[in-house]
This record gives sequence, structure tokens and C-alpha cells, in this order.
Amino acid sequence: MKKRAVYPGSFDPITNGHVDIIQRGLKIFDELVIAVLKNPKKDTLFSSDERVDMIRTIFKETPGVSVTAFHGLLTDFARKNEANVVIRGLRAISDFEYEFQMALMNRKLHPEMETFFLMPNLKYSFLSSNLVKEVFSLRGCLEGLVPAQVETRLRDKFPHKTGLAVKD
Amino acid sequence: MKKRAVYPGSFDPITNGHVDIIQRGLKIFDELVIAVLKNPKKDTLFSSDERVDMIRTIFKETPGVSVTAFHGLLTDFARKNEANVVIRGLRAISDFEYEFQMALMNRKLHPEMETFFLMPNLKYSFLSSNLVKEVFSLRGCLEGLVPAQVETRLRDKFPHKTGLAVKD
Amino acid sequence: MKKRAVYPGSFDPITNGHVDIIQRGLKIFDELVIAVLKNPKKDTLFSSDERVDMIRTIFKETPGVSVTAFHGLLTDFARKNEANVVIRGLRAISDFEYEFQMALMNRKLHPEMETFFLMPNLKYSFLSSNLVKEVFSLRGCLEGLVPAQVETRLRDKFPHKTGLAVKD
Amino acid sequence: MKKRAVYPGSFDPITNGHVDIIQRGLKIFDELVIAVLKNPKKDTLFSSDERVDMIRTIFKETPGVSVTAFHGLLTDFARKNEANVVIRGLRAISDFEYEFQMALMNRKLHPEMETFFLMPNLKYSFLSSNLVKEVFSLRGCLEGLVPAQVETRLRDKFPHKTGLAVKD
Amino acid sequence: MKKRAVYPGSFDPITNGHVDIIQRGLKIFDELVIAVLKNPKKDTLFSSDERVDMIRTIFKETPGVSVTAFHGLLTDFARKNEANVVIRGLRAISDFEYEFQMALMNRKLHPEMETFFLMPNLKYSFLSSNLVKEVFSLRGCLEGLVPAQVETRLRDKFPHKTGLAVKD
Amino acid sequence: MKKRAVYPGSFDPITNGHVDIIQRGLKIFDELVIAVLKNPKKDTLFSSDERVDMIRTIFKETPGVSVTAFHGLLTDFARKNEANVVIRGLRAISDFEYEFQMALMNRKLHPEMETFFLMPNLKYSFLSSNLVKEVFSLRGCLEGLVPAQVETRLRDKFPHKTGLAVKD
Repeated sequence: MKKRAVYPGSFDPITNGHVDIIQRGLKIFDELVIAVLKNPKKDTLFSSDERVDMIRTIFKETPGVSVTAFHGLLTDFARKNEANVVIRGLRAISDFEYEFQMALMNRKLHPEMETFFLMPNLKYSFLSSNLVKEVFSLRGCLEGLVPAQVETRLRDKFPHKTGLAVKD
Repeated sequence: MKKRAVYPGSFDPITNGHVDIIQRGLKIFDELVIAVLKNPKKDTLFSSDERVDMIRTIFKETPGVSVTAFHGLLTDFARKNEANVVIRGLRAISDFEYEFQMALMNRKLHPEMETFFLMPNLKYSFLSSNLVKEVFSLRGCLEGLVPAQVETRLRDKFPHKTGLAVKD
Repeated sequence: MKKRAVYPGSFDPITNGHVDIIQRGLKIFDELVIAVLKNPKKDTLFSSDERVDMIRTIFKETPGVSVTAFHGLLTDFARKNEANVVIRGLRAISDFEYEFQMALMNRKLHPEMETFFLMPNLKYSFLSSNLVKEVFSLRGCLEGLVPAQVETRLRDKFPHKTGLAVKD
Repeated sequence: MKKRAVYPGSFDPITNGHVDIIQRGLKIFDELVIAVLKNPKKDTLFSSDERVDMIRTIFKETPGVSVTAFHGLLTDFARKNEANVVIRGLRAISDFEYEFQMALMNRKLHPEMETFFLMPNLKYSFLSSNLVKEVFSLRGCLEGLVPAQVETRLRDKFPHKTGLAVKD
Repeated sequence: MKKRAVYPGSFDPITNGHVDIIQRGLKIFDELVIAVLKNPKKDTLFSSDERVDMIRTIFKETPGVSVTAFHGLLTDFARKNEANVVIRGLRAISDFEYEFQMALMNRKLHPEMETFFLMPNLKYSFLSSNLVKEVFSLRGCLEGLVPAQVETRLRDKFPHKTGLAVKD
Repeated sequence: MKKRAVYPGSFDPITNGHVDIIQRGLKIFDELVIAVLKNPKKDTLFSSDERVDMIRTIFKETPGVSVTAFHGLLTDFARKNEANVVIRGLRAISDFEYEFQMALMNRKLHPEMETFFLMPNLKYSFLSSNLVKEVFSLRGCLEGLVPAQVETRLRDKFPHKTGLAVKD
């Protein structure tokens, strides 16, 4: 039987850290459903259609990867997609507690669904979509941080942008 | 002499984790003053009156529990209520650092006031008011997460709501 | 050769914890450039001019301290100021992970720049600009938390202010 | 193709937390090789033969589970067993950093091997073999903490034992 | 009714951090039973009799404090002493996870017993009995770290001692 | 004036992570005194003479680096060497709390001495002398983990060694 897992996220935009997790997940799972969260409340840089499109382009040659936008409970999405595993990256420098909280709530809502945590490559351990957006908005170099297509899209869509927050 | 403690929070809405902490606190303290924060800046789902009312309903048969809305410094509230103890739940999966920071600032503002930390039941260790609101907004089941009255109020007040943020 | 380091932050407003880090940094570095972040996106209490001015007043008698507003990448600012060291305070009760993430991203953007972490005095380990603003807004005493000039400015600028968020 | 993973540990003795992780792992992997560390340096309560035997007894009716003692590098063991996945439990209250350190070293030694982290049931989040031994040595009740066979073995082997360390 | 709590530990030796926790505990509890762990397995610097004696001397004028050596399960000790509360200090820089693990195991063994966590004064947040012993063994000054009696006892018992471990 | 810092540790043996910290430290400090702890209590693989000798060999061409064995309080050593700065590496995956505890105790013993924390290269963030010894003892490849000289010394001194502890 084919093993299928869901990899949920905002992917706004997808980073090399996400790509790395997908590639690691494919060692174990025959099919990965990349679930792109449509979030009406959260302000995203790219629309869910754009985010789905970018990820599809990146993995268009990779068998076993499908990309879908979703809205609602992740547990409902997993049920509908007949997947009882969710994978999540766990960065060495990361919101461990947030991930555990979500995984435990999901277990409460859907006890048969399991969350598997994978470590991305160390070199992506500081990487997040938010940090990518901040560096981009300050005209920093994104090389090695996002796939080439993502950088192109960012430059196309936002010829100039500003505003990096340094916590005080 | 009667021992009195203050249990402050937003309680927007009160969860079973909060209820559990209150019950544990009552083993030690003769009187618990539930202090419901009126926060003009923070957007709450329920008004402070509604939040006070829900908690009062839940504990109307429990001697020793009183519920009050408050605004201002917690240390001033504690002084006015002649309580020199604050209790706070500390979840295994929790913002430990936030709690310590607040407790230390409160100690600076009111050196005689002591903060006592209690662990809720493990089964509530992933629970927060925010997570409850998110699950509710996505039409997830709240059974076991909040008192029945709270679920009823949520369904009455918000026939349909959307928008769960998954951190990317 | 003179050793120069950059100390970046929002400083909205500068606290005694920041002052303490600056004084510790001056034991090692001959020159400290206090880099005040102009952040168009983040809502600050004081304008960057006001923040620069407050810090200059505090250190006007301290040789080796200069204060500059900046916008853009910290790494670009450091290059322009011919400094290859950034110092950051690391509080015992602190966002360790945030600091590491920023430092690693900065290392990616500018491999020759080094981030040095210093511990402030323990008595400031719970202190942050945000907490200062919250206490002030609730009319709490700021003694020992900020330099006298900062308290004066706060009282001058905001005769009355409200709204402290207690996380639930 | 069958998916095989290795679950390494000292299992001195196996606890209900370990059993829980094995059961969760079997949702994904067709075969789990329980790798019982023979550790000449570390003082174990049960010999590796005894530990292997206990685990075999517990899973004798569970298809897909095999139990082997091993010595040496885990990465060599995984290679020899043609498994490129290791699973490890990650408790909410746990040595996260130790697990990450080991997983990263293993990735250095064997880049194709992946470590997957699973969360045990919350009710086992405080459980460890060491704590089981300590509670047993102080004649505490082990019900719910270890499989029945393990408790029997402990009582058979050690009619009376003492010495629980409380950190000061 | 009198409120009684147990404060367990090795107290080898008692530090000013422990003394601080006892004084804070006495604001809430009418009686504190200091439970000095007799640990046959763990190598202590002072015998349990010496440790009990030191603490008794320090608190001989403090009403409500009693000191007892104990061996076995803390939960059994608490039952025998008719106390259903345990207090533990939680240092800002501390083994939070260890404390939670112990508290959760104790809750499993004795569901009616509650653990309350108190923060010591910030100035003791780095202090532990082990660190005191290490500093002493290297002839460092113990002023402000332990009660005067403890320093005297250390100097009487160990005219010269060596061996501080710096982790590499 | 020349800036001098002390870099203390057991260095049993020195790893590439230590070497990396030394190189980063040399960007700021004109002189680094590598202080090799002679620890009569702690069982080391290499004698302090051997450890000093290995480090001297590695840095024999690097101006500004001196290597000394020391015993006693680090603060006394720093005073004697006229250095008022200690540097320590802080790994992303690291005993942050241990480092803070030691730094705070050192500040208590010698208020003028400052501890500066530096991040090693991410690729060394999981590396420690203990892990190196464990991998070596299990005949694992040390390439990239320690300087070539260290690997040679290990192989010369210990033709075969066993015993890696996996925490259960």
C-alpha cells in the first residue's frame, strides 16, 4: 500500500528549508500532499493560488508530490485526503513548543492522525518565510535561502519593499 | 486567617485548563479572586462583562470563588483585594519565560506579592484560549476543552466564524 | 587599532538593561555605534529622532559612544560604519532563539561580521522596552527600569495612556 | 517495497512510553527493528539479553516487530539492517537538545539516514526508564508506567532495592 | 485549619536560595516541613544528620518550620505528615524540565498532592548546592551564597578541598 | 592597548568547534589565552599536558594565541593573566543554562570580568568533546569534527576503545 503524508504550511513563500523537508519526507512516504493554508485572517504576501503555483513549479518533475490549497481544520483535510500522517520540520532553532501544541491539539481532534517531525539541514535551521520576507524587503541577497523561482517572483511582484523589524 | 489569592487572566474564553487551575488553587486558598482583565487595547472575542458572567456561572456553586473584572496594574488590584498571592498555571508546553518575566516585574512593583505556579492536568497542557478560538472558528469539536456553557455561548454568539493561522 | 562594535535595537525607549549592555560593551570596544532602527512598519512610541536624541543625552559624557538612526540591513549598516562586530544583550529570561536566528541570518548575509552576546545585570533580566511601556501605560512606577530622562519624556509626551495585555 | 525503521534505545527497562512509540511507528513502517543497546560502560539494571527478551515477549503477537541487541554505531547498525530511518520519541518534557545533537551527529556519519521524531501519548510525557527504576526502588506503584511483564521481572529480580535521587 | 507544606531537597548544603524559598513559602503556609533526603546512593558532602542540624540551627527562631530527614517516596512522606502540598523553587535559570517531570510523577503516585512552584530572588537564580561546593573546593568566597553557619561548617569540616568541573 | 581574553575549557580533546571559536575570538581580541582546565576530579582522556600540547601544535603559527593549563577558580586565573574578558562558545543546540549559571557565578566572584558568548559555525552546533570521544570509541569517522592532529593522537593513544551511551 502507498504511504501518504500531508505537509501543511503557509509557504508564504516556500523556502529552501521547506524544500529540504519535502525531499526528506519523500524518502519514507510514496506521496506527499503539500497543503497550502488559505488563511483569510492572516495577511499573506502571496495569494494561496500563487503559493500553490510556485510549489507546483518547483516540484513539477518530482513524482509523488501534489499541492493543494486548503482551508479549515488540518485534521479534516487529512481525513479527506486519506492520509493519517502529517510531517512538520523541526528546526534546531525553532518554535518547538508551538509545534507540540498544534500536534497535541490535532491528536485530540483526530486521534488516529500522527505527526512526524523531521530536522531540516542544519544550514536551514535559522530560516523561515518571515525572515526571507524581511531580508527581501531590505534588499538583502536571498541566494541559498529560497528556490530561484521564488526569488524571481518576489522581484517581479515587489520591485521595492521595506520594513524589517528588529525586536528590541 | 483566611488565605486569599488572585488568579488573573483574559479568560477569553475560560478553558478547562483554567478551571483545573482554579480547582487546584482551592485546595490551598480559602478564597480565590478570579481577576478578568479588561483590556481596551486587545481585541477580545467576549466583552469583560460576558467573560465575568461565564466564569460566575461555572463557579456559582463553588464557595470561595469570586469573579471581578479589572483594569490597571495587577499589583494594584491585589493590594486593593488584600491578597498577596497570585497564582498562575504553568503548562508543560508553555510560555515559561513570559510567566517569569511578568512575575519578576510584578515582584519589582510589589515586593510583598508572591506568584505561585501550578501545573494543570497534563491533558490540558496544550490548551489555550487562543487555540480554542481557532478550533471553534474552523468548526472543530470543543468537547473536553471548555466547559459546556462556554461552548454554548460560542455557538450562540458566533454562528459561523473562520480563520486559523498555522505558522509557516 | 580602535575596536568598534555596533549595538542595534529599536530602543523604544532605551531601558536600564540597554544602558547596562552599553557599559559592559565599552570595557572591550573603544567605540560603540548605537544603531537605532527606523522601522516604517513597526509602530513605535517615540520617533527615531526622539529615540536617538534620548540616547545621545544619556551618553553625552561617555567617550566612544555614538548614536545613529538606520534603516535597511544591519549588515549593510555595519559595513558602512567599518564595524565587523555586533553586540546583543542576552537576558537569562530571553528570546534566545530569536537572537540566534537573527545572528545566523546576519552571518549568512555578511560572513565576516561577528555577533557577541553579553549578559545584562541579573536585575534587568526581566526588562524589555515593551514591558516598560506597559507598566507606564498602567501608571506603574518606572524607577530603576529606565534612565530618569526617559521617564521624564514618557510623562511629558503621554500624560495618560492605557492598555496592558496579560496573555491568557 | 516494505518500509523499515530502527528504534534504538537502552530500554532498561522498556516503559509504556516506549511501547506507545512502537505502536505509533507501526502505523507508518511495515517493520520496526527495536535495537537494544549493549553498553559495556553504562551500568544497566537488566542485561541486554534480559532487555531483548522482555521486549520480545511484549511484542510476540505484533507482526513487523523484531528485537536485536546491538553494539557500536547506530548508523552501522542501520546500514546492516537495510533501514534508512531511525525513530525516536520526543516527549513534551524531554531532552530535546540531546535528541537533536545525536540526530545531527548521526546525519554527519550517515547522511542518507533520517531521524523521525514521534510524540508519545501525553500521559507518558514525564516517563523515563530511570524514573521507573527510581520509583520501583522506593517501592512505589508502577501501574500504568510499564507493561505488566516488566513489573513482574522487576519484582522477581529485585525483591528490595533503594535509592531515589532528588536533585537539590 | 493550619496549612502545611513539605519542602523536599538534598540541601547538601542549604543555600541562600533555599532559605529564600522557605521564607516565601511561610507567607502562605502556616507550617513548612523541610524534608531532607537521606540518599544512600548519592554521595553527599554532609550526612543527613548534619544537614538536618544545619537547617534547624538556621530556622530555630522561625515559628512554623520543622526539619526531618526522610527516605523513600516523597508522596509517602507527605501523606504521613498530613501535607498535601509540596513547594519547590523554580529558578529563572533552572532545570524546569526536571521539576515538571518529578511533579508529574508525584501527581501520578499521589493525585491529591499538589506541587507549588515559587521563584527565588533573582540574585539566587544561578545558585545551587553543587555550585556552592565547587566554589568552596576552589577556595572561592561564599559570601552571600550560603548562611554564615554553612560556611563555617564547610571550613571546619574540609580544611582544603579541590576539583571544579568546567564542562567542555 | 592590547585586548586580551581567556578561553577556558577542558578541551578533552579540542574539537573543530573550539578551533572555530578561537578564530572568531581573534577577530576582536589581540591575545587569547586558552586555559586548559586541570581537573583532578574529572576523568579526562588526555592529561592536561597532552591537551595543552595538542592545542599549542594546532595554533603554533597563529599570533596572539597562548595555551596554559590551570587549576582553581577561573576568575583568579583571569586576574593573574590580566584579562577581564572570558569568551565561551554558545551552540545553537547547547547547554545555554549551564553557561549562564557559570557566567553569573563568575560575575559574583569577579564583578569586573565579563563573559562574551560567540556562536560557532552552524556545522559545529552539535559537536562536543564527549560526542567526539563516543564516536571515536565506536570506530566512527572523525573527519571534519576534530583537527587532523587530534585524530592522530586519538588513534595513537587508543588503538581500540568501546562504549557509547545512548540515553534511553
